Amino acid sequence: MGKNLSLNFAQKGLRVSVYDKEYGVTKQFLSSIPFSYSIRGFQGIDALVESLSRPRVIILLITAGNPVDEVINSLLPFLEVGDIVIDSGNSHFKDTERRYRFLTEKGFRFLGMGLSGGSEGALKGPSLMPGGDYQAYKQVEEMLKKIAAKSRYGECVNYMGERSAGHFVKMVHNGIEYGIIAGISEVYQVMREVLLLRTDEIATIFEEWNELLFDSFLLRVASIVLRQVDELTGAPYIDVILDVAEQKGTGLWFTQTALELGIPAITIAASVNSRMISVFKELRMRISKNSQIKRRSLEQESLGLDLISLLKDALMFVNYIAFSEGLWLLTRASNEFGYNVQLDNVLKVWRKGSILESNFIDYLLLEDLGGLGCLIEKENIIKNLNLLYENVIQVSSIAKRYNIPIPVIDSAINFYLSIVSEKLPANLVQAIRDWFGYHGFYKVDKPNQVFHFEKGEADS
Amino acid sequence: MGKNLSLNFAQKGLRVSVYDKEYGVTKQFLSSIPFSYSIRGFQGIDALVESLSRPRVIILLITAGNPVDEVINSLLPFLEVGDIVIDSGNSHFKDTERRYRFLTEKGFRFLGMGLSGGSEGALKGPSLMPGGDYQAYKQVEEMLKKIAAKSRYGECVNYMGERSAGHFVKMVHNGIEYGIIAGISEVYQVMREVLLLRTDEIATIFEEWNELLFDSFLLRVASIVLRQVDELTGAPYIDVILDVAEQKGTGLWFTQTALELGIPAITIAASVNSRMISVFKELRMRISKNSQIKRRSLEQESLGLDLISLLKDALMFVNYIAFSEGLWLLTRASNEFGYNVQLDNVLKVWRKGSILESNFIDYLLLEDLGGLGCLIEKENIIKNLNLLYENVIQVSSIAKRYNIPIPVIDSAINFYLSIVSEKLPANLVQAIRDWFGYHGFYKVDKPNQVFHFEKGEADS
Repeated sequence: MGKNLSLNFAQKGLRVSVYDKEYGVTKQFLSSIPFSYSIRGFQGIDALVESLSRPRVIILLITAGNPVDEVINSLLPFLEVGDIVIDSGNSHFKDTERRYRFLTEKGFRFLGMGLSGGSEGALKGPSLMPGGDYQAYKQVEEMLKKIAAKSRYGECVNYMGERSAGHFVKMVHNGIEYGIIAGISEVYQVMREVLLLRTDEIATIFEEWNELLFDSFLLRVASIVLRQVDELTGAPYIDVILDVAEQKGTGLWFTQTALELGIPAITIAASVNSRMISVFKELRMRISKNSQIKRRSLEQESLGLDLISLLKDALMFVNYIAFSEGLWLLTRASNEFGYNVQLDNVLKVWRKGSILESNFIDYLLLEDLGGLGCLIEKENIIKNLNLLYENVIQVSSIAKRYNIPIPVIDSAINFYLSIVSEKLPANLVQAIRDWFGYHGFYKVDKPNQVFHFEKGEADS
Repeated sequence: MGKNLSLNFAQKGLRVSVYDKEYGVTKQFLSSIPFSYSIRGFQGIDALVESLSRPRVIILLITAGNPVDEVINSLLPFLEVGDIVIDSGNSHFKDTERRYRFLTEKGFRFLGMGLSGGSEGALKGPSLMPGGDYQAYKQVEEMLKKIAAKSRYGECVNYMGERSAGHFVKMVHNGIEYGIIAGISEVYQVMREVLLLRTDEIATIFEEWNELLFDSFLLRVASIVLRQVDELTGAPYIDVILDVAEQKGTGLWFTQTALELGIPAITIAASVNSRMISVFKELRMRISKNSQIKRRSLEQESLGLDLISLLKDALMFVNYIAFSEGLWLLTRASNEFGYNVQLDNVLKVWRKGSILESNFIDYLLLEDLGGLGCLIEKENIIKNLNLLYENVIQVSSIAKRYNIPIPVIDSAINFYLSIVSEKLPANLVQAIRDWFGYHGFYKVDKPNQVFHFEKGEADS
């Protein structure tokens, strides 16, 4: 990723100094690139810093966590007031918050920058989400615009907000990504196991959907990987890959943060939990042997309806809800932490180059997103969700009849139904809790005052 | 709660010294109790400690968090080596872990004790979950047995395990409680809004179910509160209670801990999130006005099936899955933290006096639970879940047709389907992630080695 980012800068005519803690890596990299590129490598971090014109701009692309602190500490002796450090790894926003304060107090300028697009994106044009020191951002803006992806809205880089906003936005980006990948994989499994479609047939369907509707990077990648063939066996490559998806990064952080900030992001949480369940492969194999529950399958015709078309709507529905949950958490964080995030800027930056790249984003940008809480408040959005709803619940029902778990699609349905419900049964929850634990409840006509049941001795 | 626990001890003939940081509270309490009770109150914490015979046994029943540390610190100067401190509030297990080490290093004995049953339970016989210093437990065991609830298995108190195991068990207890309360409330809402049943009719149905099958404390409380009437209006009391259920205690901790330990407790997580969604009452009201989605309702007869009976099975299903998720997390924690928890002891302690009191627990205790991971591994359990399954998915389908959110029932279904699935689509998740981000995957025949796609330039 670091290599590709350097190449991207160099291709745009910028001079680049590179450093890796293992000099061998640097040497190998330098020997692999065209002589015309202005990239110099350094064995010591002091020499690296010295090679840069002032104020220096130093971009870190290293594993999140302690390594970032170690590199920052090793940079410190050589930095001068006004120098700019940009952490473009997948750091936790709380670490970025801490580092921002630490470096700012010393007079250095710090940007925590989300970077999306994978290693290929880093080379060909990533989506960049810097946050932190605004003046530093303005100083590097032109440089970043040169390497960023371009969309109809301009370069896919913008100032995301104060302090750790950049990495918070990246965490939200990844949370939405988790939801959409899980949505694609649930739709895939229904096609595969209910309709018995071949992987190349599913790839073709995904390509058609993408051309017709989504123009989504993730759906494009899904169809590419579904067409890969295992050279040894000639089988679809997907079938030699173990169905175990470990995770402990940004998706987990997203879910933890949503819990902390009180945002019910159940669809994205379900996608994180789906990966967790997948890890218990041996348990699942043992249990499936005992289980009476067997997968059934059928021919598309015998279902009497166009399941494939229903699945397309389910995937679109998951897109809506994953973005709703993600942007809701982002709004909440922006208010809570004073990030001052502009949602339309965020979406424009995601439009191209990012893993979320999709023309679905154009659609969201038609809305006035200023001060957004929940996307479903928007009339056009709710209208579209309503149009999809009947088809999505058919998918839910069919999947259950054929014993296919679809936790993400179901969570999207329940998120939607809960948000549009004026009345939820939380009054019964509160009544029960007050009865045994004196937890208290509000009354319909006095929503700010805590009441309790007056229990006679006879009741207790 | 503290008052009732003191009374419970005194009624069993034990001498009790009481202290509250506000002496007025102590005085009022003492003036309210029969003269024959051996309860003495103290104005200073030093006098309280001095009044006790050695080794002293001091039970804290105070708000979790800093207050516990403050009281422990104020006790320190007066404690002697061998004295026993019991924290029976709802402390976070991580706090208990820290306090255990702190007090043990000083030569004091510490028990973190979960206590369930509400304030009434504290008086009439709670369920007690002490963990920590085993020798201290043996010293207080007889005393605790005197005040604990009694079940067919004996007194509802036992040693839960090492260090912070007692509060971990209580957190798991409360997580399961969240799930079951949410399950009851979803079933209630379907009855209320689809079948248009009156609250007293629903109370009667819950009573019948309870007599027939559950014998559950929570279902009993649900029917009691559903029979309460608002004196002012004559309306069902439940209808004057606002449908907003705030939470930030043990349910949240349960969900956070499950994420940390990698246990996919999606049903309990859904119940926590249901409360979170309920808090956005104004948002829900605004959105429901714009929504085309309106609640429909029907007469039981016109449905052509016994929806009430299906709902009973759905609630039973939620019981199974909530216990599965909770006990799975507990097993994982016991292994990870070396608690050495005995699951059958835990269930026996919950059998009476606790909020989870139910004869459903008897059923679980028929199984050999030693070294349990996931309850669904047990043949009898899976057999019963299979019997319920067809009815539960009918509930899911009906609720969706009538626009009622049932996130907890749906999560229970998806947990079950995922766990019994030999194959999940996590292979596609991994394939997509490796294609764009080089995250790697395992192969079916080499589950311990990380592979990557070999991407030709043409592909990228």
